[in-house]
Amino acid sequence: MTTTFTKKDLTIADQQRLQTLEQHIELARDYFLGYPVSKDFDFSEINHFLNFPINNIGDPYEQGSTYRVQTHELEREVIRFFAKLFRANPQDYWGYVTNGSSESNLYGLYLAREMYPKGMVYYSGSTHYSVRKNIHLLNIPSIVIRSQDNGEIDYEDFENTVRMNRHKPAIVLATFGTTMHEAKDDVTRLKGILKKLAIQDHYIHCDGALAGTFGAFIEPRLPFDFKDGADSISISGHKFVGSPIPCGVIVTKKSNRDRIAKGISYIGSLDTTITGSRNGHSPLFLWYGLKKMGEEGLRARYLYSLDIARYCENKLKEAGITAWRNPEAITVVLPKTTESIKQKWQLATEGDMSHIICMPNVTRAQIDEFVEDIVNSEEEAEEEFEFEF
Amino acid sequence: MTTTFTKKDLTIADQQRLQTLEQHIELARDYFLGYPVSKDFDFSEINHFLNFPINNIGDPYEQGSTYRVQTHELEREVIRFFAKLFRANPQDYWGYVTNGSSESNLYGLYLAREMYPKGMVYYSGSTHYSVRKNIHLLNIPSIVIRSQDNGEIDYEDFENTVRMNRHKPAIVLATFGTTMHEAKDDVTRLKGILKKLAIQDHYIHCDGALAGTFGAFIEPRLPFDFKDGADSISISGHKFVGSPIPCGVIVTKKSNRDRIAKGISYIGSLDTTITGSRNGHSPLFLWYGLKKMGEEGLRARYLYSLDIARYCENKLKEAGITAWRNPEAITVVLPKTTESIKQKWQLATEGDMSHIICMPNVTRAQIDEFVEDIVNSEEEAEEEFEFEF
Amino acid sequence: MTTTFTKKDLTIADQQRLQTLEQHIELARDYFLGYPVSKDFDFSEINHFLNFPINNIGDPYEQGSTYRVQTHELEREVIRFFAKLFRANPQDYWGYVTNGSSESNLYGLYLAREMYPKGMVYYSGSTHYSVRKNIHLLNIPSIVIRSQDNGEIDYEDFENTVRMNRHKPAIVLATFGTTMHEAKDDVTRLKGILKKLAIQDHYIHCDGALAGTFGAFIEPRLPFDFKDGADSISISGHKFVGSPIPCGVIVTKKSNRDRIAKGISYIGSLDTTITGSRNGHSPLFLWYGLKKMGEEGLRARYLYSLDIARYCENKLKEAGITAWRNPEAITVVLPKTTESIKQKWQLATEGDMSHIICMPNVTRAQIDEFVEDIVNSEEEAEEEFEFEF
Amino acid sequence: MTTTFTKKDLTIADQQRLQTLEQHIELARDYFLGYPVSKDFDFSEINHFLNFPINNIGDPYEQGSTYRVQTHELEREVIRFFAKLFRANPQDYWGYVTNGSSESNLYGLYLAREMYPKGMVYYSGSTHYSVRKNIHLLNIPSIVIRSQDNGEIDYEDFENTVRMNRHKPAIVLATFGTTMHEAKDDVTRLKGILKKLAIQDHYIHCDGALAGTFGAFIEPRLPFDFKDGADSISISGHKFVGSPIPCGVIVTKKSNRDRIAKGISYIGSLDTTITGSRNGHSPLFLWYGLKKMGEEGLRARYLYSLDIARYCENKLKEAGITAWRNPEAITVVLPKTTESIKQKWQLATEGDMSHIICMPNVTRAQIDEFVEDIVNSEEEAEEEFEFEF
Repeated sequence: MTTTFTKKDLTIADQQRLQTLEQHIELARDYFLGYPVSKDFDFSEINHFLNFPINNIGDPYEQGSTYRVQTHELEREVIRFFAKLFRANPQDYWGYVTNGSSESNLYGLYLAREMYPKGMVYYSGSTHYSVRKNIHLLNIPSIVIRSQDNGEIDYEDFENTVRMNRHKPAIVLATFGTTMHEAKDDVTRLKGILKKLAIQDHYIHCDGALAGTFGAFIEPRLPFDFKDGADSISISGHKFVGSPIPCGVIVTKKSNRDRIAKGISYIGSLDTTITGSRNGHSPLFLWYGLKKMGEEGLRARYLYSLDIARYCENKLKEAGITAWRNPEAITVVLPKTTESIKQKWQLATEGDMSHIICMPNVTRAQIDEFVEDIVNSEEEAEEEFEFEF
Repeated sequence: MTTTFTKKDLTIADQQRLQTLEQHIELARDYFLGYPVSKDFDFSEINHFLNFPINNIGDPYEQGSTYRVQTHELEREVIRFFAKLFRANPQDYWGYVTNGSSESNLYGLYLAREMYPKGMVYYSGSTHYSVRKNIHLLNIPSIVIRSQDNGEIDYEDFENTVRMNRHKPAIVLATFGTTMHEAKDDVTRLKGILKKLAIQDHYIHCDGALAGTFGAFIEPRLPFDFKDGADSISISGHKFVGSPIPCGVIVTKKSNRDRIAKGISYIGSLDTTITGSRNGHSPLFLWYGLKKMGEEGLRARYLYSLDIARYCENKLKEAGITAWRNPEAITVVLPKTTESIKQKWQLATEGDMSHIICMPNVTRAQIDEFVEDIVNSEEEAEEEFEFEF
Repeated sequence: MTTTFTKKDLTIADQQRLQTLEQHIELARDYFLGYPVSKDFDFSEINHFLNFPINNIGDPYEQGSTYRVQTHELEREVIRFFAKLFRANPQDYWGYVTNGSSESNLYGLYLAREMYPKGMVYYSGSTHYSVRKNIHLLNIPSIVIRSQDNGEIDYEDFENTVRMNRHKPAIVLATFGTTMHEAKDDVTRLKGILKKLAIQDHYIHCDGALAGTFGAFIEPRLPFDFKDGADSISISGHKFVGSPIPCGVIVTKKSNRDRIAKGISYIGSLDTTITGSRNGHSPLFLWYGLKKMGEEGLRARYLYSLDIARYCENKLKEAGITAWRNPEAITVVLPKTTESIKQKWQLATEGDMSHIICMPNVTRAQIDEFVEDIVNSEEEAEEEFEFEF
Repeated sequence: MTTTFTKKDLTIADQQRLQTLEQHIELARDYFLGYPVSKDFDFSEINHFLNFPINNIGDPYEQGSTYRVQTHELEREVIRFFAKLFRANPQDYWGYVTNGSSESNLYGLYLAREMYPKGMVYYSGSTHYSVRKNIHLLNIPSIVIRSQDNGEIDYEDFENTVRMNRHKPAIVLATFGTTMHEAKDDVTRLKGILKKLAIQDHYIHCDGALAGTFGAFIEPRLPFDFKDGADSISISGHKFVGSPIPCGVIVTKKSNRDRIAKGISYIGSLDTTITGSRNGHSPLFLWYGLKKMGEEGLRARYLYSLDIARYCENKLKEAGITAWRNPEAITVVLPKTTESIKQKWQLATEGDMSHIICMPNVTRAQIDEFVEDIVNSEEEAEEEFEFEF
């Protein structure tokens, strides 16, 4: 396909910038332990789809649009995969592939607000910061519930707080795998408290960005899915499954979604997604990744990660570091490291803590190198403010 | 990089599905005239970046995050390119690459709401449907202004409506290139009306998803940019520039953005973007595309499109079709076609109208084929509802 | 009085800084024409009061406080002077000396809001910017009324706008001497419109920061005072009377003030002022200045200023500059000057206009020098944005 | 500088009034123990600056204004001095010199309201009365928290009250040195309670009008500053440092201030201060005072005051008076005295209590005289209401 205008080549300087960028990115990729991103994916078999401007505009379950450069069918299969894993009612689920778990959570909260315009959102202090941004964006009143030391929501504080607001519908944002500790709020217990308080108007959204993907494989089972009491579940696609592009999935009850459907003439589709044009490559990546590993491969990934996490925790303890994990977690929490180690391994820190997330690509060799770095590190002075007074 | 678990091959059935999908998509790509998507891009030089989980999490102008597999630097250059094109104050602009113009518009409206929590949004009836979704999401009161027949906002109705709400800050969503007619609301005229009504608290967001990218090249000039009176401008990246993944750009005044900055400890960044994790490939695609064409290449693309649009309008008129265009538009409006033509060329229709958007990849040969299809088409009975009762 | 700790001398560097500052300030003082500040005061007779920490805390008319290092008695005389000048009811006035007309206006609007909590504020687009800050601070809804070209409020627009909000109490902020043009809103005409619309719940505050001090001497009379319809009037003390410290006066009806009196035990005073501790030197300066000039001296100052303004306007016109004045104004409006003239004479500019305010200290010689500067100035290029792209 | 109109001399009567006033003020100054005002300042070295109409209009950190008779540079140094003393982040502080701590507190609360428009203010019953005026002016809902007997906020009541309003952002007005008892609310403890209740949206303003100036010198340390958890701190300038004119300082985080910046064309400055014209002499007085004493001199002043306070407390106790002090306070609380003593020493009283504030100028001789007065005083019949019926 040619057009009448020419394109120039990149300048040599720009070509070199791209090479430097690639080297920089490759190096950075090989040394991060602090972010929950898988990097062992191989999509060479489908990379050529990049030649097409795929756009999954609109609802993947509505067939009205005339635009056909899309992957709606694969998208529906991805949703079905997770709906099954999350024990949704096969007759009553819906979802779409989002630009990341932040949009997935936004969608869950949006649904909840539409159902309960006078609702109050409850979420723990360990909830991902983007949830606060979402709640602010949606303009919903909210109360933060205290966290326990392990990062899990404080159920007693939750109960007392909801009790004082029993006249309002309760929208609960449970986290299945908090950012820092991979703590998992117990959806069944939260639902039980709502029942005990006789709050009939309630909605539980489960943010499973970190651990939702492998939640079905945890033994003994930790409650988080539709049968456990959730009304919607969000997960990340680029974290545990792996994808070059950040993406996520929202799975919800179809009956709830129908409440916010609005008729739109332009795209010939009842568009209940948040964005308009939607990335059609991410569903393809996710579909491909899920097909390649299947449910069993996904389970194997989790068991591998869990094994590495145990190994890491033990190695750190043997080295005299006070490391710990939540039950069955793949995240190992440890005291804040020195700045140089933090930078080398791209560790996220919060207060006086840091963590390692044993994604499926992390190896024992990397753990060994990391622990060695810790052992050899020297005390560094804490950064202080300085005035040039 | 290897891990301990194996991956299976795709089944033969699935491999065939992928092949079929590709053929289907390729065919569909070659025959759409009704959607504003460029398809002449060639990113083979940078496709291998797909091997990395690039994530531009957080504000591209904040350097605090420890996660380094990102393309923030290129992203800032993309923003600067458009800030310059839109005549922003070099000391006072900010922006980021979004997942599409829908998110860009959401951001503009979000900024406006934060500045004027008691504001009222005004937008014309020809505004893109996703804007209504955005306004609903943000929970802002709004009033729809009548459109003129050519799709442009009715300035008289705008003035009368705002006059009746002079005690409220005015948030105006101007469209520079409406979906159906590529009509362009005159930002300077809108601002003049606000000034005449002495509304000091106001904010004008310009939705340039369709025409913003080439707005600077239109002669005679049509007002839409920062010097013309806009406070923020959104554009699409995958439309006129071309990108395999839907993406957009929001450019705003830095001073306005600062009002919604919130300190966040987790990512070590003041994150004022809407999402958390952000696609880092799209900035790379945009940067590459802009580098390859430069400002002059972009201008050439517009002039080419304009030429094709004139050609198309004339051919249709010669064939007796009542086609028309807004001044300097690349969109040709025509009466609704038959269903088979609509499907073949993937035309968007609204009421009794349809349109062709002469993106840079559209050729005279395609126009010829399309017009021939029209001429040869037979009248079809209007589709009736049928019940399978 | 001595205490047990010693004080060091200023370093020589700091002493030199003070000298440089004084020279800089002296030079700057001698060359400003664009700000309404008198600089011909001489308070050497009372400067030694600076040795006392005078604090007029609380209401000057309440005698309860035990703190006696204050000048409440003089303050009351200052208020009485202006109450008389503004033809207040001798049985029903109240006021205090503020930190400037901004606080005076804040007080007037505060009174109005307390009387009409559901009121709507109306003010013209030429109103001083600090009024908008005040309204925002007080959290009152407001509508800006269009200005006429001479800076005066557009009465027709005012009438139409109030008519559309007849169910709300009307709080009118009239300006007697706008910042840029010294335009004077006609309080009697505004009141007449409210009467015509039968708005019984209304309040008119007159911002006389610039021209209120000499308003009583203008002939033919322009309506602005209590008899003309105002409920409160604010003026500046450091502008026309002259004072080293910015200060202002608010005069209002005592009956209105009583509505916001709140009992406070601590200072033994019903404190209805906005601040707590209050500068007690400013009332002394004002009292002294008023005593020295008396009403007749004040009138003479105005007539002198008026004479200089006429002289200035004529000289500029003779030089071919399109200068103009509002009726009986001491402000001469002229087209925006070059940057160097603006800097030398410290001119305030707005859009494409500038102005000279002929305060009582401005001399014909200064006008001559200024006009000569204008005549000799060369065209300068307008500042443009530049991108380092 | 001369103008064409003459000024008359003061009448002999008026000259005598001024002399009487001065004597009265001098006497009053020498005998007040009940107000926190230093009177040992000597500004003779800089008094001649009174000859200039200094006006620090606008933000001291914005350099745009054309008006140059100002002391912005010294003002910024004053702010920096206190920012350092209050352990602010050197990259993130801002402030200005106000007309007193009342305006400083107003500014802190204003910032908080702008950040959290739906916030609730909490303050103790011992808070300065002007804070209530401020909250009323700003139109923010508020709840008064019980005080303990020593004047400190009741932390338990605070926790219980906030718990019941957890859905609202919490704006806390902590007092560091209450008016009557010089009690100091523990900012770190208050912040800890907010954290325990998981209130992420919160703002703590510390009213340090009385004790903030010397707070950094108290040992053992009492928490009140930025590192301790405050978002903004206000202090008085005329109290502990000494100044003939009431003034104050507000220090806040620059990042917070940026949220309320508004562009204003008139003064060519982003003016985020509350008033328009601003007293430029007070920053000069403060700068001079701080330069003369330095941080060490300020510390010496505090230690001197503390010593006098201990002396006073002991003398009173020896005389059989039940006097007491809060830990490390310079205020001595005692039972209400007779009316004649109250008048002679200008004591502030509240309920059945009175206090002496041992400012740096108070001497042992004055304490001795005061205690002697107390010992010699005879019981007086309590004043009764009388009706002149």
